[in-house]
Amino acid sequence: MVKALILIADGTEEMEFTIAYDTLIRAGIECTSAFIPRGLSPYGSSDTSPPLAVCSRQVKILPDITLDPLSAGPEKYDALIIPGGMGGAVTMAESTEVQNLVRSYYNHPEKRTIGMICAGSKVAITAKLPGQPITSHPSVQSEFPEHFEYKEQNVVVSAVPGKATLVTSRGPGTAFPFVFTLIELLCGKDKRDEVVGPMIFPSGTTGYPF
Amino acid sequence: MVKALILIADGTEEMEFTIAYDTLIRAGIECTSAFIPRGLSPYGSSDTSPPLAVCSRQVKILPDITLDPLSAGPEKYDALIIPGGMGGAVTMAESTEVQNLVRSYYNHPEKRTIGMICAGSKVAITAKLPGQPITSHPSVQSEFPEHFEYKEQNVVVSAVPGKATLVTSRGPGTAFPFVFTLIELLCGKDKRDEVVGPMIFPSGTTGYPF
Repeated sequence: MVKALILIADGTEEMEFTIAYDTLIRAGIECTSAFIPRGLSPYGSSDTSPPLAVCSRQVKILPDITLDPLSAGPEKYDALIIPGGMGGAVTMAESTEVQNLVRSYYNHPEKRTIGMICAGSKVAITAKLPGQPITSHPSVQSEFPEHFEYKEQNVVVSAVPGKATLVTSRGPGTAFPFVFTLIELLCGKDKRDEVVGPMIFPSGTTGYPF
Repeated sequence: MVKALILIADGTEEMEFTIAYDTLIRAGIECTSAFIPRGLSPYGSSDTSPPLAVCSRQVKILPDITLDPLSAGPEKYDALIIPGGMGGAVTMAESTEVQNLVRSYYNHPEKRTIGMICAGSKVAITAKLPGQPITSHPSVQSEFPEHFEYKEQNVVVSAVPGKATLVTSRGPGTAFPFVFTLIELLCGKDKRDEVVGPMIFPSGTTGYPF
């Protein structure tokens, strides 16, 4: 079974989080949401029961776990997903544990998949991923160093040989094409089509082509 | 300030709930989510602190309140929103309190707005709303009595003179056009355009025209 780890923090964009989690579940992917605390790290504590995440527009979501970096790596999950929402994205981008986690997925010999959407793409900068095609919410575009090849596309798929496939996207409005691209990469085009059908998209809006 | 009451229950479609709540907040609408318990009614109990709602794909959301029918009426809120997800929609459709609530919004002399999406449209049947144009998830289409004028459209706006405006829609894939239609009705087209912009929709997918 394909497994995905989806990060969440206070200030996470609740639509981007929920669209990713729910739609991946519809594709038969086992999803685990992991809370990223702000500031001082609680790691080393034995208490990993997560608090409620208060999202960007005050929807309160109970994550499945609090992130334990020792058991959240690319040996356990096929994909790592980082949603936007400025508050949550800043917490994730500044977290040493998240930076290390992203690098471990990026460099894992069994090619993993990393998804970042909206301000979540900031983590590609702080994790010091090498330059490659990328996109993000326009409000953080100016933060990307020049070695990234910034694109104003709904979804950007970057496949550096021997590294994780990096899928980036722009905002809540591109969250469906983002997650369908992840499903196609992880489970194939037939599964993508199977999931799209019962969700009843207006014609022309299912993310083909991204 | 425009105020909306959004229902939630175990089995509610978490994308439809979250897209509605979050996007209405972006429009400056004050949102309150109200939990609908399944089966035996707790009303009369003084404990209105809500439990976690376990949604259709296992996202766990803490509602703002448990529904108190005495303070949830059209005197307090401008709009009543009913998301889909079969489990949650059945709970709502079978709830006498929800049926009464929908009728009170429908008949209130200061024209209110009622939104139902996906299987949430089932409540229009059990609340015995009069026949009018309507849509829903295709999986429940056959349940609508013939006096409803069923339409296979992304969003259906029904404005019976002197009654609430009833806005219905089809599924997660039409949730954005659904909520933007509600925003346009409640706050005007300029506000809709203002909210759409920073959400970065692919061109042609913002719900114009529905």
